[in-house]
Amino acid sequence: MISSLSNYKVKTVRHLQRDRKFRAREKAFVVEGSRWFHELLGQHSLIRWVFYTDAWLETAVSIELPAESYLVDDVVMAAMSDTETPSGILAVAAQPKLPLPSTLSFALICDRVTDPGNLGTLLRTAGAAGVEAVFLSPGCVDSYNPKVVRSSMGAHLRLPVRQWNWPQIQTAVADMQVLLAVVADGELYTAVDWQQPSALVIGSEAHGIGPTAVQMAANRITIPMHAQTESLNAAVAAGVILFEAARQRRE
Amino acid sequence: MISSLSNYKVKTVRHLQRDRKFRAREKAFVVEGSRWFHELLGQHSLIRWVFYTDAWLETAVSIELPAESYLVDDVVMAAMSDTETPSGILAVAAQPKLPLPSTLSFALICDRVTDPGNLGTLLRTAGAAGVEAVFLSPGCVDSYNPKVVRSSMGAHLRLPVRQWNWPQIQTAVADMQVLLAVVADGELYTAVDWQQPSALVIGSEAHGIGPTAVQMAANRITIPMHAQTESLNAAVAAGVILFEAARQRRE
Repeated sequence: MISSLSNYKVKTVRHLQRDRKFRAREKAFVVEGSRWFHELLGQHSLIRWVFYTDAWLETAVSIELPAESYLVDDVVMAAMSDTETPSGILAVAAQPKLPLPSTLSFALICDRVTDPGNLGTLLRTAGAAGVEAVFLSPGCVDSYNPKVVRSSMGAHLRLPVRQWNWPQIQTAVADMQVLLAVVADGELYTAVDWQQPSALVIGSEAHGIGPTAVQMAANRITIPMHAQTESLNAAVAAGVILFEAARQRRE
Repeated sequence: MISSLSNYKVKTVRHLQRDRKFRAREKAFVVEGSRWFHELLGQHSLIRWVFYTDAWLETAVSIELPAESYLVDDVVMAAMSDTETPSGILAVAAQPKLPLPSTLSFALICDRVTDPGNLGTLLRTAGAAGVEAVFLSPGCVDSYNPKVVRSSMGAHLRLPVRQWNWPQIQTAVADMQVLLAVVADGELYTAVDWQQPSALVIGSEAHGIGPTAVQMAANRITIPMHAQTESLNAAVAAGVILFEAARQRRE
């Protein structure tokens, strides 16, 4: 059992949890909780290390632990975990390299989304709506930030996500209509022809939409609200628009 | 300036922040932040006390503070606030008593939603989609919980919310079609006729849908996901469905 905080692997996990550059250099990230762990078991080759507590093992039903699995005590688990109440299972995984489709028809661009819970929910929502690729602009929180990973519910394993600069993003969506979600005075989001190749740009509630995104997008779209003072959380707004697109694309 | 934690008003605010029963008895709740404060200024009669810091006052542009406004020091503000980085403005407000419409045509029922951030986002989303009333089942977190209030962004002031028992809820929606959002195998949510009087039931991700809600609802509806493993956050799922209803109701 690992019970020392100076253990090399424990120190590596803690470094991965807090340091974006270190995650990028190691091409790795940390996942926590049974749900994420089960997702990861489906892509076994990504798993580097697994850490679990006795208490977790007792509740785990018929799980075959990967080779590099380590029992740790509660103090070590608490030190490695990003949550206040650790679930007892934590893994280090390689950052997946999902290829972009050769022809993109449905993409999401996140413009300077800095709230990790919001970005994670955006990734989860995009995956569920059938988005083929997500592009994160400069200024977005790291998609492998522990809070992003937690709220994404495994979306990283199924959806290509790219943290790119604006010229790269512009090239990727050059042949698509680019639609900017704005709070008011845009075209009705339900009036858009979503059967055309489309990229939706979502800004953050805190920062709005940046100048590059404004320049890039030919069309502004708006979700009509019940009254002027109403507004939507960024991830909910994205969900409403992306599932309207999915509805049209099914037809 | 109030600088003592044993001040009667300061103690009352702290009690309101942590005690649901005390909030119910006092028919009051606490709001924080400039955005909420501005919403509240629009319904002036609800305001009981306002507390602000020097730093907040310096950034506040042309605000006329209500009569019962008190300057407090940073230590007192931190002690009253439910957030880690207080905005510097906090108010105690009366719980609004918005009447239910005499004929309901669009309602949301939250079934045992225990996560306060999720419930607040549900209220905000319901308000934006034009829902006329929200019913909270037994087992839901208190709608005046500080975290619910924070993520609701003022929805309490515009939308009637009732924390009722099941027989009361059943009576209120007796003449409506009741639709249960389920993860799989329900009718397509876009195939429902939302122009009929409709009540949507949303459960929590943690607890699913309870037996009473199942009994009450004639129809189960599902948002089709891109793949079997995908899922949606409860507030995003509600947003997708409620805005599909709003789209049909506009037509």
